[in-house]
Amino acid sequence: MTQRTEIGQVGEFGLIQIIKEKFSNRNSETVLGIGDDAAVLKSADNIVHSTELYIEGIHFDLAYSPLPHLGYKLISAALSDLAAMNALPKQVTLGLGLSNRFSVESVESFYEGVQQACEEYKVDLVGGDVTASPTGLLVSVNVVGTVDEEHLVKRSGAKVNDVICVTGDLGAAFMGLQALEREKQVFLANPGMQPELEGKSYVIMRQLKPSARFDIIHELRSLGVVPTSMIDCSDGLSSEIIHLCNASGVGARIFEKNIPIDDETYLVATEFNFSPLTAALNGGEDYELVFTVSQKDYEKISKLADVAAVGFITSDPSEKILVLKSEQVVPLSAPGFGQ
Amino acid sequence: MTQRTEIGQVGEFGLIQIIKEKFSNRNSETVLGIGDDAAVLKSADNIVHSTELYIEGIHFDLAYSPLPHLGYKLISAALSDLAAMNALPKQVTLGLGLSNRFSVESVESFYEGVQQACEEYKVDLVGGDVTASPTGLLVSVNVVGTVDEEHLVKRSGAKVNDVICVTGDLGAAFMGLQALEREKQVFLANPGMQPELEGKSYVIMRQLKPSARFDIIHELRSLGVVPTSMIDCSDGLSSEIIHLCNASGVGARIFEKNIPIDDETYLVATEFNFSPLTAALNGGEDYELVFTVSQKDYEKISKLADVAAVGFITSDPSEKILVLKSEQVVPLSAPGFGQ
Repeated sequence: MTQRTEIGQVGEFGLIQIIKEKFSNRNSETVLGIGDDAAVLKSADNIVHSTELYIEGIHFDLAYSPLPHLGYKLISAALSDLAAMNALPKQVTLGLGLSNRFSVESVESFYEGVQQACEEYKVDLVGGDVTASPTGLLVSVNVVGTVDEEHLVKRSGAKVNDVICVTGDLGAAFMGLQALEREKQVFLANPGMQPELEGKSYVIMRQLKPSARFDIIHELRSLGVVPTSMIDCSDGLSSEIIHLCNASGVGARIFEKNIPIDDETYLVATEFNFSPLTAALNGGEDYELVFTVSQKDYEKISKLADVAAVGFITSDPSEKILVLKSEQVVPLSAPGFGQ
Repeated sequence: MTQRTEIGQVGEFGLIQIIKEKFSNRNSETVLGIGDDAAVLKSADNIVHSTELYIEGIHFDLAYSPLPHLGYKLISAALSDLAAMNALPKQVTLGLGLSNRFSVESVESFYEGVQQACEEYKVDLVGGDVTASPTGLLVSVNVVGTVDEEHLVKRSGAKVNDVICVTGDLGAAFMGLQALEREKQVFLANPGMQPELEGKSYVIMRQLKPSARFDIIHELRSLGVVPTSMIDCSDGLSSEIIHLCNASGVGARIFEKNIPIDDETYLVATEFNFSPLTAALNGGEDYELVFTVSQKDYEKISKLADVAAVGFITSDPSEKILVLKSEQVVPLSAPGFGQ
């Protein structure tokens, strides 16, 4: 990008105008979008909303995250929480904190990705906030969706003997992050080196540009299946299963041999001397869905290519365990739950 | 505060649990609060939502903002956007970025103010996000409210000859900020000095702990008055009137002699060699409401003690002017609109 326009040249309201012109509303539920004190939505269904705060240096590194990918990723990651409620996404608002490192052009580049995500997920960007930041880029993403009473799925509905299902595959985003981090270190040590990312494009794209699995939400609806509980996989499978079990007052038993891990994830993990199983259990950022269904409903979805049954719900809330391929049994554990 | 518990000792989910226990839901519209992937609200009315991002060092200074006041202020400031739509507030979610300077006790102290605001405005804290921050405190506040079709007020409905009204008084929050900033400089130069804040308690509290004017929203409703347009005063009266005029395609004429300014604001402004009029026009952060009503409706509200008529709407969109006490006429101007 050759041109650089300082944000001060257009002003806060000028910048909002530039952003506003890139977006138009597509949902009939959107009564009022960008440009007033608040956005307005009208629906007879339940309104589902969630917020995420993303901070440069904590959640992303602009050394290897292209801004359009980042815009797309943050919208996907936040919308994934609505998928986890079995809801349909409708509206997004964005709060942006920008240090003076950022030009009008770089903000536009970020919004290219936001725009692509809005098209992909059929949501309207209906408002937000742009402000100065003392250090780096801060992004708050707020998402609003709808779901009728019959389809609303909470974390708390898992029942004994329900089948635990996982969409897609796990651990790839974490291994992608390791690959990108290593290339960054190599580049810092020797800026003349070419990046060695061959054979890692899948895991890298899983890290840089993940998708929210509304495709699965639509497939479940067309098969007439409502999960008994659901959560999205942002912190790793272990953490998510512990959440589901704690909320539902049940236990779980999952099987290593059933956990879906892509071949490339195995290869990259091997190259990094890292356990692919650990990447899947504790890596996070895959934004796949983890859900439980009754055994009867499982029959209906067993033909879905992108859903794997990884285990089942048990009655003892103190038992959340993983059965290894060696048939050894280990308790599921997750960081973030304190000591 | 003598005790200091590191956030790492309780973990992210431990901290969320501590926060969760302080809050319970009071609104019948809240179907699901803290603890799932997203919050759920059910209402037959329009859903109104807005987001604000607040950053330490840009929007607040912890050198003189007690954490409970800050918690209260940020909720008030964000909810004020819902008042500006003539909506009733229902739910709040909070995203918090915390550097390692913050202990569990300081987070609890911040949430004391959040709790007080939730009680005051009868809203439910229904979710959020807690994450690490490389520098200081970051807060995103997301607010959700409801309003039926008949009461929804946009910026765009102002009509020629409508009366422009302002609630409360203006400029106080800005003068409070000046007083606090000066005391901070004095303290930094000589930590033994006692703060000199006598005679400044009103302007200082207007800065540290402003209110969202839902009292006025309720008064307007009980008088059967729906404003033709409305905005909240976060950037100063000039900026807000320009916004209303631009959205409505009209002009405005306001009168210096009618702009409500508190006596203490005058006194502090004089002490600081600052124009109280400029504080009111460009100071911001008062979170009062600026709205327009038909002349007929103005008769109904003219008896309200806390509402002042400051001018009227004119037909020429290029004319947004202030008539000084000297009867000189000057165009309204506001920073933030670019060059």
